[in-house]
Amino acid sequence: MKARVYVTLKNGVLDPQGEAVRHALGSLGFEGVTGVRQGKVMDLDLEASDAAAAEADVAKMCEKLLANTVIEDYRIEILGA
Amino acid sequence: MKARVYVTLKNGVLDPQGEAVRHALGSLGFEGVTGVRQGKVMDLDLEASDAAAAEADVAKMCEKLLANTVIEDYRIEILGA
Repeated sequence: MKARVYVTLKNGVLDPQGEAVRHALGSLGFEGVTGVRQGKVMDLDLEASDAAAAEADVAKMCEKLLANTVIEDYRIEILGA
Repeated sequence: MKARVYVTLKNGVLDPQGEAVRHALGSLGFEGVTGVRQGKVMDLDLEASDAAAAEADVAKMCEKLLANTVIEDYRIEILGA
């Protein structure tokens, strides 16, 4: 089973990396970009065969390791086999 | 208008960061994770009001800056206003 996890900064948390990308885009002539926020996406291959159990497991992984829940939100998609 | 860009490593390209996450998950007791691939997600705020023009612009940004197309694939979603 495959799962995909999106980890993004919470609203209001400064994102210097995204700001650097926005600035670089402006330097390249893409003036119409007013904001950039950068996050992570992780594709997990799981041995679990039950979608609900897999999602619960991945949520635990997010809480423990994949996301810093003080400043980041996460979203889980179970993609099936 | 908002756009979301996913940048992921092409298949076959080594992903040491993903491998480190997989190893760390194993150390934490999540034994059922057989593989992790890590990518980036970027949320862009655009001044453009035409979805097709916005998508073409974002594709140019990906080719020029956001993705290294030698080793990375990108995918664009236009999310509307």
